[in-house]
Amino acid sequence: MGAVTIKNLTIGDGGLVVMAGPCSIENRDQLIEIAREVKNSGAVILRGGAFKPRTSPYSFQGLGEEGLKYMKEAGEIAGMLTVSEVMDSSDIELVASYVDILQIGSRNMDNFALLKKAGQSGHPVLLKRGYMSTIEEFLLASEYLLKEGNRRVILCERGIRTFEKFTRNSLDLTSVPIIKKMSDLPIIVDPSHGTGRADAILPMSKASLVVGADGLMIEVHPNPKKALSDGQQTLDYPAFREMMDELKHLHSFLHNRSYSEAPAQMKAV
Amino acid sequence: MGAVTIKNLTIGDGGLVVMAGPCSIENRDQLIEIAREVKNSGAVILRGGAFKPRTSPYSFQGLGEEGLKYMKEAGEIAGMLTVSEVMDSSDIELVASYVDILQIGSRNMDNFALLKKAGQSGHPVLLKRGYMSTIEEFLLASEYLLKEGNRRVILCERGIRTFEKFTRNSLDLTSVPIIKKMSDLPIIVDPSHGTGRADAILPMSKASLVVGADGLMIEVHPNPKKALSDGQQTLDYPAFREMMDELKHLHSFLHNRSYSEAPAQMKAV
Amino acid sequence: MGAVTIKNLTIGDGGLVVMAGPCSIENRDQLIEIAREVKNSGAVILRGGAFKPRTSPYSFQGLGEEGLKYMKEAGEIAGMLTVSEVMDSSDIELVASYVDILQIGSRNMDNFALLKKAGQSGHPVLLKRGYMSTIEEFLLASEYLLKEGNRRVILCERGIRTFEKFTRNSLDLTSVPIIKKMSDLPIIVDPSHGTGRADAILPMSKASLVVGADGLMIEVHPNPKKALSDGQQTLDYPAFREMMDELKHLHSFLHNRSYSEAPAQMKAV
Amino acid sequence: MGAVTIKNLTIGDGGLVVMAGPCSIENRDQLIEIAREVKNSGAVILRGGAFKPRTSPYSFQGLGEEGLKYMKEAGEIAGMLTVSEVMDSSDIELVASYVDILQIGSRNMDNFALLKKAGQSGHPVLLKRGYMSTIEEFLLASEYLLKEGNRRVILCERGIRTFEKFTRNSLDLTSVPIIKKMSDLPIIVDPSHGTGRADAILPMSKASLVVGADGLMIEVHPNPKKALSDGQQTLDYPAFREMMDELKHLHSFLHNRSYSEAPAQMKAV
Repeated sequence: MGAVTIKNLTIGDGGLVVMAGPCSIENRDQLIEIAREVKNSGAVILRGGAFKPRTSPYSFQGLGEEGLKYMKEAGEIAGMLTVSEVMDSSDIELVASYVDILQIGSRNMDNFALLKKAGQSGHPVLLKRGYMSTIEEFLLASEYLLKEGNRRVILCERGIRTFEKFTRNSLDLTSVPIIKKMSDLPIIVDPSHGTGRADAILPMSKASLVVGADGLMIEVHPNPKKALSDGQQTLDYPAFREMMDELKHLHSFLHNRSYSEAPAQMKAV
Repeated sequence: MGAVTIKNLTIGDGGLVVMAGPCSIENRDQLIEIAREVKNSGAVILRGGAFKPRTSPYSFQGLGEEGLKYMKEAGEIAGMLTVSEVMDSSDIELVASYVDILQIGSRNMDNFALLKKAGQSGHPVLLKRGYMSTIEEFLLASEYLLKEGNRRVILCERGIRTFEKFTRNSLDLTSVPIIKKMSDLPIIVDPSHGTGRADAILPMSKASLVVGADGLMIEVHPNPKKALSDGQQTLDYPAFREMMDELKHLHSFLHNRSYSEAPAQMKAV
Repeated sequence: MGAVTIKNLTIGDGGLVVMAGPCSIENRDQLIEIAREVKNSGAVILRGGAFKPRTSPYSFQGLGEEGLKYMKEAGEIAGMLTVSEVMDSSDIELVASYVDILQIGSRNMDNFALLKKAGQSGHPVLLKRGYMSTIEEFLLASEYLLKEGNRRVILCERGIRTFEKFTRNSLDLTSVPIIKKMSDLPIIVDPSHGTGRADAILPMSKASLVVGADGLMIEVHPNPKKALSDGQQTLDYPAFREMMDELKHLHSFLHNRSYSEAPAQMKAV
Repeated sequence: MGAVTIKNLTIGDGGLVVMAGPCSIENRDQLIEIAREVKNSGAVILRGGAFKPRTSPYSFQGLGEEGLKYMKEAGEIAGMLTVSEVMDSSDIELVASYVDILQIGSRNMDNFALLKKAGQSGHPVLLKRGYMSTIEEFLLASEYLLKEGNRRVILCERGIRTFEKFTRNSLDLTSVPIIKKMSDLPIIVDPSHGTGRADAILPMSKASLVVGADGLMIEVHPNPKKALSDGQQTLDYPAFREMMDELKHLHSFLHNRSYSEAPAQMKAV
């Protein structure tokens, strides 16, 4: 069985695991507020970028270590696990000293040096599919982690680059059932990056559950229009809360159980 | 309201409309058998190709008019509407004399002469998205039909060509909620072509309902391994029946009603 | 040997065959002027669209048969062969009654009904690669023409759809040497559509000759900024003349002969 | 003027700079033999992979530092500059202690941490275009290097991922004249990776010169069928020699000078 346990949270055991938070960590107070909000709505892992991979060197690059400190504090206050991206093999221990899960981003899925060292580190890893990677390449990238003995690997489908222009990427949901047949690693879906559109997050999140995803990663911000990055694919608090309600309802239908029976995402962490 | 009514069937009113049948019409008796089977499982429209667009001129090209005669007979016997592809503007009236809905296939979405004449014909049209077409181009293609005054147009998402190799196409389900915002035409999904894999049809069909699709088009054959075309993306009878059961269950959850309340797909046609 | 002879012009025998003219035929006098200009610069075939495949039904659709009449007249006055697109199988004889070569456009490469009837017609055909077609599919499309006994087929590479945004298409020049190994049909290149940029036409035209193309198709207009379609990928007269000079110089280098030795493109037609 | 000078070699001044060598460094004696061979044919920079980015962790990963030692020795013996890939920011100084130019490979074009540190290092960098990157993203990646004050940056077009299957990638030669307009950095072309086919290397190399490339990177091996990686896109010695002869002939035509006039690639290094 491929479920991954991190502290007291298990991912891949049939529960609905939602990771939520801002694209970029912007400041301490805002992050704590967001953490409380998304926790109240049912999210169990706080996401937030401190080291940001930006196409242009002239774009905001993230708060770096300062941001990681805020992550640690916000996670503790809200009672959530935390995940943040590591972009450089030399930063692995730094990032891991503040957050529970190392994210390897889409642009670094082919960064085999980073994969190897993240595998050796033993820290839980969230591996995002490269936006230009086939499913086969995605699974082989996960092998770089597994080969080093690190079994706490969570996959994340986040859309691929195609010719379509109304969406930032084309979310390839068919990858989920295919990967479920070929690998026993948990897989979650990121419809924020996968579509680039706030109005597509809810339907594509529901579709993700239906095709068998073990969880979701969602960008949430108190005021998406003022977010320092990715505002157009970010939910505000009320939209996130509504979405979580719909997802719980659907999840309980899919798993034939009611949410009063202590669902996974309600476990204390 | 953009629902389309053809004879006594309405598509786009919240009911679950499933089109099913073989990729290619192979012979009369088999087609009648398939029609009865898929009708019993809940399909309301019989699909089957008589004129087949094949990449190679040396592949089986379909039975032509003979196949259309079988479609008409099988549809009448089973009590189903029928849909079949027209590939040439000069065949529009021929095809329309046998079947209820003209299909314009993915490879002909850019065949503007065919679109114009199909629009002028006034016959109901199922327009498939070009496998290399953007959503915008897809909607503009539908405008070729609408501009001629033909309002009975049903759209069909069927996957786009990408670099991914484990699937025949990448099913772009995000197109469904986007198109729902931009057009009031009904839209169905074809997960058979959209994935090219029998094992992906069930999960992607369920996901299609969840994102708002008005129906599905599914390839069904008594013995997919022996089908003259597309066997690897075709369900056999038991798999189709099981799928329909799951879809009805999900549809009734999504629409908050039970299937004892005379659901759309049970309407006599 | 796969050279194609149309009237007194041979394509595919080592000569440089340039087809030039406006994207859309706009009016009689302008077309005659363009024909004389491009003939003077060394083009031997006049191109011009009368039936235009446009993404939107609300865009200019071409002059239709009236435009074809102008083509015939302009070709006769300038002493050039003519090529124009046919979009519908029922128009084949109409178009062929005015022009020497039927063009089957990129959007119709998969229109197998049109291919079959164009093959049966026996008229010379210029077959453009589908913008979403593999080389294998392109060659199989040409088989639809050849299978009907029509050997006068000229292929045209015109770029494929990719994720790149600085160009309208990605011109796939590697297809030329590959097709040269697999087929003996002549192949020309259309850098106007293949790049969508006037500033890329000259370098990509030269590259086309170097990789073995038998000719080129170039959009020329007296005032590209005012052209009814595709102005951004169209050369004006001086740019076309300069380009032709460079191409002749390069062609004579590649073929080790001087242009005083009656090169192909100087043959009277 | 954007020419880059490394030791006594200038790239981007109109000379023909060819980088050649094996995909992977396999052993010392073979590398020295290859270096002498390609130098004799006119190459001036020896390429060879010591750290290999492989899709699967179970494929040959390269000789690592041992391979770099062989590079240094082979370059000195043959009188060539050397280039080899660095995959991890922590290896920059190690690689730079052995070779003259750091290669940042296609899979790491989005590895912004590596780009920043390579920029800070001040060592000459050969930056390959990501196989799924737009031209704009490619130029922005080069900005990561330039922003740190490192001006010795050479770009390399190496093909993009498309749906085409007869080639490993689609070599996007149109990028060369476009980049020449937007940047003054030298740009070379890698037709080995760009096509994945030995039979396409010669025509696409010639086309690269014609569109304005400042050089080429070519995979050469004494016995391509036995190469540890990429044999199908590798030239043997006679094919490389012939190619170099053709390229010199074409280059001297393009630059209106004869090769007796001390061409760039004959400069001692």
